[in-house]
Amino acid sequence: MFRRTLVQLMSNAKPFTFKPSQQTSSFGPSVWLEFSPLSVKHKSVNLGQGFPDFEPADFVRDALIKTIEKGGLNQYTRSAGHPRLVNALSKFYSPYFNRDIDPMTEIVTSVGASEALFCTIQSVVNPGDEVILIEPFFDIYLGAVLMAGGVPKYVSLKEEPRVEGKKRTADGWKLDINEFEQAFSDKTKLVILNNPHNPVGKVFKLDELTEIAEVVKKHPQTCVISDEVYEWMTYDNAEHLRFANIPGMWERTITIGSAGKTFSITGWKVGWCIGPKPIIHSIAMAHQYIPFSVPTPTQEAVAIAFEEAPARGYFDQLKKMYQAKRDQLVSALADSGLDPVIPQGAYFIMGDISKIKLFGDQGQNTSITGMGKHLHDWNVCRWLTTDIGVTAIPPSSFYSDEHAPLSTNYARFCFCKKEEVLETARQNLLKVKDTENYQK
Amino acid sequence: MFRRTLVQLMSNAKPFTFKPSQQTSSFGPSVWLEFSPLSVKHKSVNLGQGFPDFEPADFVRDALIKTIEKGGLNQYTRSAGHPRLVNALSKFYSPYFNRDIDPMTEIVTSVGASEALFCTIQSVVNPGDEVILIEPFFDIYLGAVLMAGGVPKYVSLKEEPRVEGKKRTADGWKLDINEFEQAFSDKTKLVILNNPHNPVGKVFKLDELTEIAEVVKKHPQTCVISDEVYEWMTYDNAEHLRFANIPGMWERTITIGSAGKTFSITGWKVGWCIGPKPIIHSIAMAHQYIPFSVPTPTQEAVAIAFEEAPARGYFDQLKKMYQAKRDQLVSALADSGLDPVIPQGAYFIMGDISKIKLFGDQGQNTSITGMGKHLHDWNVCRWLTTDIGVTAIPPSSFYSDEHAPLSTNYARFCFCKKEEVLETARQNLLKVKDTENYQK
Ligand SMILES: Cc1ncc(COP(=O)(O)O)c(C=O)c1O
Ligand SMILES: Cc1ncc(COP(=O)(O)O)c(C=O)c1O
Repeated sequence: MFRRTLVQLMSNAKPFTFKPSQQTSSFGPSVWLEFSPLSVKHKSVNLGQGFPDFEPADFVRDALIKTIEKGGLNQYTRSAGHPRLVNALSKFYSPYFNRDIDPMTEIVTSVGASEALFCTIQSVVNPGDEVILIEPFFDIYLGAVLMAGGVPKYVSLKEEPRVEGKKRTADGWKLDINEFEQAFSDKTKLVILNNPHNPVGKVFKLDELTEIAEVVKKHPQTCVISDEVYEWMTYDNAEHLRFANIPGMWERTITIGSAGKTFSITGWKVGWCIGPKPIIHSIAMAHQYIPFSVPTPTQEAVAIAFEEAPARGYFDQLKKMYQAKRDQLVSALADSGLDPVIPQGAYFIMGDISKIKLFGDQGQNTSITGMGKHLHDWNVCRWLTTDIGVTAIPPSSFYSDEHAPLSTNYARFCFCKKEEVLETARQNLLKVKDTENYQK
Repeated sequence: MFRRTLVQLMSNAKPFTFKPSQQTSSFGPSVWLEFSPLSVKHKSVNLGQGFPDFEPADFVRDALIKTIEKGGLNQYTRSAGHPRLVNALSKFYSPYFNRDIDPMTEIVTSVGASEALFCTIQSVVNPGDEVILIEPFFDIYLGAVLMAGGVPKYVSLKEEPRVEGKKRTADGWKLDINEFEQAFSDKTKLVILNNPHNPVGKVFKLDELTEIAEVVKKHPQTCVISDEVYEWMTYDNAEHLRFANIPGMWERTITIGSAGKTFSITGWKVGWCIGPKPIIHSIAMAHQYIPFSVPTPTQEAVAIAFEEAPARGYFDQLKKMYQAKRDQLVSALADSGLDPVIPQGAYFIMGDISKIKLFGDQGQNTSITGMGKHLHDWNVCRWLTTDIGVTAIPPSSFYSDEHAPLSTNYARFCFCKKEEVLETARQNLLKVKDTENYQK
């Protein structure tokens, strides 16, 4: 230390000061940096972050073990996607898109859906271009848009007023199509759709998607990302429809998927984009300068998983498993006075926290990062962690600052957890009604 | 098809046309898309792309198998780095940097060194900022600089004139420090150094690094990336010195490493950045919106590899193995009339192709992509593939267009290949001297 200071003085160097780039300078710690440590500290049941706490299916795990044991798959593979995986994806997805998807020109594999989103945004959005984000939105979208120099435009899904006697479901969250249309300008380069929707659990219906497509069609420069990472998790016979299949939309839609969600291996980080040649080409060009390629052994294993999954009835089992978990958490929330918005897709539930009142600096004084102290959902999520023993995520972190107040009466609970974990969560949540904070 | 056309007509939609973003619109296929398929087509010995054609050490491979067998490591891990890996890196590297490296604030792990480079550049470089690239440079640098809106400034390493009787080594490639200094302006935000150097094989000496540091110090806004992915591959007692250890440089230097290179697992794509807290914080913030996190199981396995490697004498063995391979390929090139620049580091050799003359459209007519037909090194590399049976890479792809002519008398040969592969390459290369193309 002494020596370094001395040398600096001797050489008369001007002192170095670091300024981050403007496109990243607004980035701070994300919601996870508050709630993951808080959950650990207070030993709460963590229904925060969206990853399964159980192991993947044996055939998926074994595919990776066999790949490594076999050898020969430890070096770089094709930048735009490991040949066996793009072939497996092409074979698997072609029927779902009613077309032959060319494995070499219409698919790029990625480091999770996250990197697929980043590359797509980077290769589509110019500095100054506008991008329509539908609130609440997965927080990673905004960071990627800002790094491309894009300008986010926000439109919110809004919950319809409750109808007495009618079930409160995610279908009650609607996109006001006029508001959506008004968000467009001739600088709108991209719309990001998420279906099935995190955190609401909405599964868009054909008429809703068609309405969206009609607006998009009026804008010859506008592409659409359809983030469909929860495509296999739909409930109560809700049907997952692909935006790219809406007439006229294939040419401008990039569909994004995730092996992490599909095979309960979020830690393997394998994802993909499927779309028309010109856009996929651009994405592949950007991708070659970001990670260059996706890890080879996990791509091989995911390819094997896709090859084997249909014959094993995997997707039906997955849906059944999640339907049971959804029902379990829905009833826990209902019984605890946190009136749930019943999701038709994905693996999150919005619970209603409007009946919880906090006193003094409850929910603020426990903050680790100091974030969101002015927001009811943040404070209630902290209080739930420290006083009730269950961690949820404040959905206002999925809104622009200006629209954050729209969501402060909800907390997002994740149900991709073991049955016994959900049961412990239930036991803890039932205590809510006995606190003085619960307003009957 | 018919149905889609009809609907478009009916809805009077304006036709969609896709324009890639300006920051990626210049990206075309890279050199690999020419030479990898060409090598396959002509069944040549591929000494092109820099990845080992042999398996990693058993203890590295077994670490991954055991990780998957054990379970519990298949989901997302900490965004800035899997705890076990950042701890292992901290423990391993602290002595090499003569300081205690904080695993939580001074390290970020990445999807290979590639993504580390991308995130660092994205979080440091503003649109319009200048970045100094030292030619020849690893091609991924430029793509990442352009996506950040940065403006590349080029300075070339130049080979000193040959001295009769003196060995021709990579040490003869020098950075003209005046030229380097002149490339700076008050917009110079970043310098990218690569040491040991790909493709030259140069290992920078203390006086060279100190000279560079003296120039950098005059610019209070300038950061330095030191890409040290070949840190363990140095020969003939050349010593790898870390730029961050030059007095005054720690605060502004991001050192980048790669498990792919270190453990012969380029396909696992695990890398890292080590540096001062403020810059590492910015990198971590960008990284959370790109892949979010690096795959968990491979990070765990690389952590185990670092924990075990020193006691196994791994790094000495690696160096010995590569020294033998280097010697083998140096003598093959020398005997074939492709006078090699003997590298002191990394795993590439620049062979001198100035004695090869092509006739008519030799080396052009075989091109798959049509790239580089006006450049001698591209054409000779194609000719070597088709007529001699060995694939090398034209180093002009590691130069700016304007400086490409500087390198057209070299071809880059890679020696991270099995002994028998290098021997076949030798047999093939020996034919060069017998062709009419070889000018004695
Ligand atoms: C809507 C949405 N998109 C993308 C992702 C990221 O997927 P991956 O883990 O494959 O990067 C997530 C993960 O939570 C998500 O919820
Ligand atoms: C100089 C240099 N830096 C970085 C990389 C990329 O390393 P990784 O495979 O870990 O992304 C390479 C690979 O060839 C390289 O030569």
